[in-house]
Amino acid sequence: MNVSFLQELLNQVAERGRGLLDRSFFAGSPHEDIHALVMALISGRGEASGVVLAREVLIRYRQLGADERRQFFHFLAEQLAPDPERVRGAAAAYINAPSDDTLTALAKVIESPRQEFFRRLNLAPGATAQIVAMRHDLLRGPKLEPPLAAVDQDLAHLFHSWFNRGFLVLRRIDWSTPAAILEKIIAYEAVHAIQGWDDLRRRLDPADRRCFGFFHPSLVDEPLIFVEVALMSDAPQSIQVVLQEERKPAERIEEPNTAVFYSISNCQEGLRGISFGNFLIKQVVEELARELPSLKTFVTLSPVPQFARWLDRGIADDAAGVVSEEDRLTLQLLRDPGWFDEAEEEVLRETLLPLAAHYFLNAKSSGGKPVDPVARFHLGNGARLERINWLGDVSEKGLREAHGLMVNYRYDLKEIEKNHEAYENDGVVAVSKAVRSLLKPTPKPKPRNAVQRQLPPPTPPVGKPAAAPKLTSDIKSGD
Amino acid sequence: MNVSFLQELLNQVAERGRGLLDRSFFAGSPHEDIHALVMALISGRGEASGVVLAREVLIRYRQLGADERRQFFHFLAEQLAPDPERVRGAAAAYINAPSDDTLTALAKVIESPRQEFFRRLNLAPGATAQIVAMRHDLLRGPKLEPPLAAVDQDLAHLFHSWFNRGFLVLRRIDWSTPAAILEKIIAYEAVHAIQGWDDLRRRLDPADRRCFGFFHPSLVDEPLIFVEVALMSDAPQSIQVVLQEERKPAERIEEPNTAVFYSISNCQEGLRGISFGNFLIKQVVEELARELPSLKTFVTLSPVPQFARWLDRGIADDAAGVVSEEDRLTLQLLRDPGWFDEAEEEVLRETLLPLAAHYFLNAKSSGGKPVDPVARFHLGNGARLERINWLGDVSEKGLREAHGLMVNYRYDLKEIEKNHEAYENDGVVAVSKAVRSLLKPTPKPKPRNAVQRQLPPPTPPVGKPAAAPKLTSDIKSGD
Amino acid sequence: MNVSFLQELLNQVAERGRGLLDRSFFAGSPHEDIHALVMALISGRGEASGVVLAREVLIRYRQLGADERRQFFHFLAEQLAPDPERVRGAAAAYINAPSDDTLTALAKVIESPRQEFFRRLNLAPGATAQIVAMRHDLLRGPKLEPPLAAVDQDLAHLFHSWFNRGFLVLRRIDWSTPAAILEKIIAYEAVHAIQGWDDLRRRLDPADRRCFGFFHPSLVDEPLIFVEVALMSDAPQSIQVVLQEERKPAERIEEPNTAVFYSISNCQEGLRGISFGNFLIKQVVEELARELPSLKTFVTLSPVPQFARWLDRGIADDAAGVVSEEDRLTLQLLRDPGWFDEAEEEVLRETLLPLAAHYFLNAKSSGGKPVDPVARFHLGNGARLERINWLGDVSEKGLREAHGLMVNYRYDLKEIEKNHEAYENDGVVAVSKAVRSLLKPTPKPKPRNAVQRQLPPPTPPVGKPAAAPKLTSDIKSGD
Amino acid sequence: MNVSFLQELLNQVAERGRGLLDRSFFAGSPHEDIHALVMALISGRGEASGVVLAREVLIRYRQLGADERRQFFHFLAEQLAPDPERVRGAAAAYINAPSDDTLTALAKVIESPRQEFFRRLNLAPGATAQIVAMRHDLLRGPKLEPPLAAVDQDLAHLFHSWFNRGFLVLRRIDWSTPAAILEKIIAYEAVHAIQGWDDLRRRLDPADRRCFGFFHPSLVDEPLIFVEVALMSDAPQSIQVVLQEERKPAERIEEPNTAVFYSISNCQEGLRGISFGNFLIKQVVEELARELPSLKTFVTLSPVPQFARWLDRGIADDAAGVVSEEDRLTLQLLRDPGWFDEAEEEVLRETLLPLAAHYFLNAKSSGGKPVDPVARFHLGNGARLERINWLGDVSEKGLREAHGLMVNYRYDLKEIEKNHEAYENDGVVAVSKAVRSLLKPTPKPKPRNAVQRQLPPPTPPVGKPAAAPKLTSDIKSGD
Repeated sequence: MNVSFLQELLNQVAERGRGLLDRSFFAGSPHEDIHALVMALISGRGEASGVVLAREVLIRYRQLGADERRQFFHFLAEQLAPDPERVRGAAAAYINAPSDDTLTALAKVIESPRQEFFRRLNLAPGATAQIVAMRHDLLRGPKLEPPLAAVDQDLAHLFHSWFNRGFLVLRRIDWSTPAAILEKIIAYEAVHAIQGWDDLRRRLDPADRRCFGFFHPSLVDEPLIFVEVALMSDAPQSIQVVLQEERKPAERIEEPNTAVFYSISNCQEGLRGISFGNFLIKQVVEELARELPSLKTFVTLSPVPQFARWLDRGIADDAAGVVSEEDRLTLQLLRDPGWFDEAEEEVLRETLLPLAAHYFLNAKSSGGKPVDPVARFHLGNGARLERINWLGDVSEKGLREAHGLMVNYRYDLKEIEKNHEAYENDGVVAVSKAVRSLLKPTPKPKPRNAVQRQLPPPTPPVGKPAAAPKLTSDIKSGD
Repeated sequence: MNVSFLQELLNQVAERGRGLLDRSFFAGSPHEDIHALVMALISGRGEASGVVLAREVLIRYRQLGADERRQFFHFLAEQLAPDPERVRGAAAAYINAPSDDTLTALAKVIESPRQEFFRRLNLAPGATAQIVAMRHDLLRGPKLEPPLAAVDQDLAHLFHSWFNRGFLVLRRIDWSTPAAILEKIIAYEAVHAIQGWDDLRRRLDPADRRCFGFFHPSLVDEPLIFVEVALMSDAPQSIQVVLQEERKPAERIEEPNTAVFYSISNCQEGLRGISFGNFLIKQVVEELARELPSLKTFVTLSPVPQFARWLDRGIADDAAGVVSEEDRLTLQLLRDPGWFDEAEEEVLRETLLPLAAHYFLNAKSSGGKPVDPVARFHLGNGARLERINWLGDVSEKGLREAHGLMVNYRYDLKEIEKNHEAYENDGVVAVSKAVRSLLKPTPKPKPRNAVQRQLPPPTPPVGKPAAAPKLTSDIKSGD
Repeated sequence: MNVSFLQELLNQVAERGRGLLDRSFFAGSPHEDIHALVMALISGRGEASGVVLAREVLIRYRQLGADERRQFFHFLAEQLAPDPERVRGAAAAYINAPSDDTLTALAKVIESPRQEFFRRLNLAPGATAQIVAMRHDLLRGPKLEPPLAAVDQDLAHLFHSWFNRGFLVLRRIDWSTPAAILEKIIAYEAVHAIQGWDDLRRRLDPADRRCFGFFHPSLVDEPLIFVEVALMSDAPQSIQVVLQEERKPAERIEEPNTAVFYSISNCQEGLRGISFGNFLIKQVVEELARELPSLKTFVTLSPVPQFARWLDRGIADDAAGVVSEEDRLTLQLLRDPGWFDEAEEEVLRETLLPLAAHYFLNAKSSGGKPVDPVARFHLGNGARLERINWLGDVSEKGLREAHGLMVNYRYDLKEIEKNHEAYENDGVVAVSKAVRSLLKPTPKPKPRNAVQRQLPPPTPPVGKPAAAPKLTSDIKSGD
Repeated sequence: MNVSFLQELLNQVAERGRGLLDRSFFAGSPHEDIHALVMALISGRGEASGVVLAREVLIRYRQLGADERRQFFHFLAEQLAPDPERVRGAAAAYINAPSDDTLTALAKVIESPRQEFFRRLNLAPGATAQIVAMRHDLLRGPKLEPPLAAVDQDLAHLFHSWFNRGFLVLRRIDWSTPAAILEKIIAYEAVHAIQGWDDLRRRLDPADRRCFGFFHPSLVDEPLIFVEVALMSDAPQSIQVVLQEERKPAERIEEPNTAVFYSISNCQEGLRGISFGNFLIKQVVEELARELPSLKTFVTLSPVPQFARWLDRGIADDAAGVVSEEDRLTLQLLRDPGWFDEAEEEVLRETLLPLAAHYFLNAKSSGGKPVDPVARFHLGNGARLERINWLGDVSEKGLREAHGLMVNYRYDLKEIEKNHEAYENDGVVAVSKAVRSLLKPTPKPKPRNAVQRQLPPPTPPVGKPAAAPKLTSDIKSGD
């Protein structure tokens, strides 16, 4: 493999990416303001001096405060929008005489000049990362209304092309990875927080641990998404087993047969809505299967972020009929913060597991998909709901969000496409017998549909991702 | 700089890029035909199994013959076009009620599904290079008419995003570059053909020679464009001086003050119309100026590919008045193939140089720009026409195309933007006094404009690139 | 530069270096004991199966306990020594007829078979690091007496060849360096301990900080020696200024003129006596001077590890006359642990600085060189004693060892060789006027020699490095 | 694996190795002559300014002509030899009182100061390659007599340490290798000459061809030794099959089972006598077996460089009895240069093959080892003589040296050590039944020993390597 030539290639990317945006040689005038510079960049002048102008725009942008940045977005929204007159004319021309030519003409006037602006902005060294950060700025704060929503759409459209999976690179992250990247892993971990460098080392360095991330050649040192994996002899029932601090050497498996994806985190808020998780998991499955032929099973150990919330509503809403009176009584035991260490644990288990099965299999959001965002993500990828784990996560967060439950989703290579199709087309949830058997017989002779109709109003749809903020983009992508 | 991490990154790109597209793990059904696979790829199934489906489409495509490929493009043109009914509806809705929402809706139905198809196709390992090659296939043969032209536009639009200069990497190419890349330099050189490995070495290895190319991280081993540079103590008057086989050590300059760009070649037909040359020259100027502060002058040594043709027309068209009777007689000396070694050389020089100055300064194509495509390219970049070199290229090609003339264009950093603006806005050609003084006083009291009006019909505009086929994309970009 | 090919090269080194020493293919018998394996390795069998045998010896060695390792060294000392009979014979033959032939014959029998043993041992993947570690094992514990000293001499002789500076590579260590190496920097820092990853980052990441180390291609991930540098606008008077946690951005210098070497640490006990520090400092000076032409001054900020001890002896030994009665009284103030924050500080300063000047300039060890090992190192390198800094290090260690004093040695490129020669040949200490002027006029009419003769018995010579254990090898090398 | 850090490491090596030895910063006086510089380098001054002095010595050395270099070596031989008086004294002291101390003292005075000189010379950037070249200079010309032989011994001793196999790196050489290295492969190929870049590509690029070399981190761009390998479905009977220009794709094997080592070349004359071939073959076997588990057989296709010469002597020397009268007549057919295309071929085959078997199995050099140097090399490595190939190499060289014969030696992993031991200890040649059966029954009732006694005086021993000059070092190493 001619690896080395490419390696040098990347030297260049790296240098450009990290280098200070020092004024060069061809430097433009320091007296123009950012609006004038933007207009120059998309004019003919931008053809001759694009790199310089783009660099200047970025320098000015970085000096803006939060309010000025918002103003800048409004400027883009208003000044760089398609010309309504010309759109109207081209639309009419198309209606009068539909043809390839009138269609092309219409497409041309409809593309917002912002797209070309952002493409030219990307001429500057290190620009890609900054344009991503610009969208992060844009998405901060309240939901975007027109006309800023149009700016967001333009950026999202561009990123959809630029961050095409074909341009991403899978990289193993381990204890030999540069510290500059590792500190970002610590910062971005969104599922089970990393408690500093020692904890990080425990997750990366042992021979039975793996971490992989997607990187983009123009986003130096910045993972886009990463996944942490434990190689084990069995699908684990709790995150405590995976993350325990002291492991005896004997606990390291010679020939692991199970790869456990126990954490997956998106890193770039500016890339919200651009989905990588599905690709990442599948490519990591391929890599691991190639490296370690002993691996036969690929499962996640996943949180259930909405369960407690859903259950609260069920308790509150007497009419729903999901939570029986008896359940209601038992669930009061949960008020004792130490319930999971106590004798009551057994009683709660018998009450909560059937409710959880119901939550996954019968509770649907308005779109007809499961209420749980993590479930939607993995089921949408073609995984199967394999097991619900009692006391799977007894951390404060695990107890608060899911009364300690965790779930294994299984990626079975032979079934992925079939599961995906059934799920997308018919809303069928692929599920193991074990989980299915947890379901209580439907309480009354009412048909299942009836049960669903009685459900409490479905938990808030994806639009309110408050409970799992950092997971949003990928998790949503499963919808 | 954290170069090393990125280097490893590219290992991955390289492996993916070069690896055979072996059926993987998640491999799809071998029985589906390419049309069915395309439709699957843009359907929901493509979300679950995109990588596999994309890989399969590419495998099938490579097995198609030339005619089948053309049919495949027609399939894309017809089956993956925007839906006319929906376009018409959205256009009407916009006209009725112009708003951000109706505009967005219109933009959505107007984007051809082919764009998403090509983006998903790019999921497969090594796909980018193959999609570029697909466009090369498409552009082979006669000029594209609708509906294939629309497929071409979609690809061009996508490549405009994907091959944004911000994603390109400048690389020095030298004698330590892998042979796999060097053999492509030999193959792609379009201006002064490279006569094998020894000639290549003479151009790359000496301390006073440089070669730089742009690469894209996903197009492994494939330069997009490259430029060859000689470091000298003066702008050379002929290519013979630059390419001579035996150079005495003394001819190597300790502290060169002039960088001569004597050849620039585009490499990828599939990227026709995506312009890199402007960026390449300017970045190489920056690199060289940084590396060698002794460099003060940056010039090209460029061919004049259309001069002989233009002159033939002038001779044929008596009415034009550009070529005087006396000229006409003298020019007959050119029929002797060895004229440039003879006594007649001096006479011809006095006749041809003023005609050449006229060709550059007064002869205009229909767009009001110079007739010469290389001139349009460099002048459009902001360079200045510095000198016309007599007997600058006495190779068979140089004599045939330009009666041996070559030209130096000068990139003067302080003037580039000014020159560009004047050229783009007012058609002003930046020119040295030396070249201007070659112009004969306009023959009659007729004003200069009159001369221009009398000109022979301008040489064929860019549409007929027969004379400089490989240079097309960048050269055209100067238009 | 053909960097890339070499980069791949090192891939291989790395893989071999880090790979487990798994039994290969050609694996030897598992039943032989280590002594038999050693003998096989240096026999003819070692020629055919050297790699396998060497690998086996290393595997067995790693399984030995501390006592068994000592026995193993005794085995090497006794069984792999030159044959006394043959040495005696060859020595006699040389005496009888001195010639090139008899000399060569004598040289051959005198080289201990251990040298060939260690060279063959180095055939195994990753062996170099393990042989270095072997010497570390050997040096643990009490001073080596014959015959183990001979084993140590053989290893030292070999390492002197293997770790020749020509094979070492200077590497910048920064925040992009792999964590696996950074954690060793934390572990090996011997002068001003690094308090975890945040402290490390403060020393490596800012634009005005540098760290460089020497590495050997076969000692993967293991620095041999490293130096920490601060770029400043002036030689600092205290380590507190250099290591302060919170630095205002304003304190970062745009154009530093002074490079301060504030810590230099040897890393490999197994390489004791192989000197790298001199080369490291000089190459770092070259690198920095090239990178930052604004740098004009290169100084250390160095500890004075033996000063307090030397002073104690001077106090104890009334006869020496170095410490006057008045001094003695003043120095009692040092008993107050907070003296340096108090009013007494000024008095102490006036007493201690002249004594320190005396310590550096007049107090000599038995070899006629300064008492201070750090002084011997830098003066031996050709540096000049530039300044003695009052309250330069008020850490517990700094106060205990040097009553808070630190010293700047200056590396002035034009003077290095002259200083070195004068120091080596005549014992002359290069010193600034400022330091010289601190010396009190010699107390009595006694000539200076007399003063020296009256000195307390010189502080313990280098053999007792207890006060600065990790610095030993390089510091000693200055002797 | 932390490959990347090491990659950067090598950047440094590469830069230092290739950089011009420009005068630095610390540059020494340009007026000293090379002898004075040498003496300075080994004096105390060398400690302070070693890098500078070493650089200067190398610069001066490169400017010397051939005779001056010889004088320089004499200077080293005479001025940097051990002091005879001190050797004599130390030898006497040892004899009087043999002890570790007197032994160490003797060893110290006996080591020639040249060794330290060369070690210090290696301080200069890029020195290693130049010291190797120095030995090449020394070995040019007639056999070395004392005192120059002592200089050669010192260099050989040093290189034995420096180029220890533990420091070498195995690298695959393919079509992605830098041209700067590939041109050296063309130059150094010593067995079957490479006819330019196209031929090179045929040997490196196809999926069923491999080339591996050993490199040393300090000898940038310079292979030490390399081997060319063809992956086939059978051990080939002729080199023509391996090197044919046009191969049908069908001839490329999907799952090769045989790796054929058809050429192995040493590259550095300056490393003569330092043996790498044995290690190279065995490591390549390991690499290939790991990469391609389908490979079961590892054989060479080797020349028989001394066969024709040996046979000529046998013909000339009637008394030997090896060549019968009938043979003698038949062998006259060889005078026809086209014999191998003719009907006579069959007759010659029946005559020559038994003689060849005799040549390998019975003809011994004075050391009791086979006459053939290539045979000594592979048999010494533990390989087995597997097959003698009729018309294996019908090139001019193959016919001239070996009447067209080639040989396969087989590396059978399970037998290597056993074969080696039997060969080294008892002179037993490991041989296949097929080869053994070629031996004619000993002509008379004379016992085999008798035959041997009758043999012509063994062909000149290894000392006359004229017939296979470039192979010398490794081939000899088999002795």
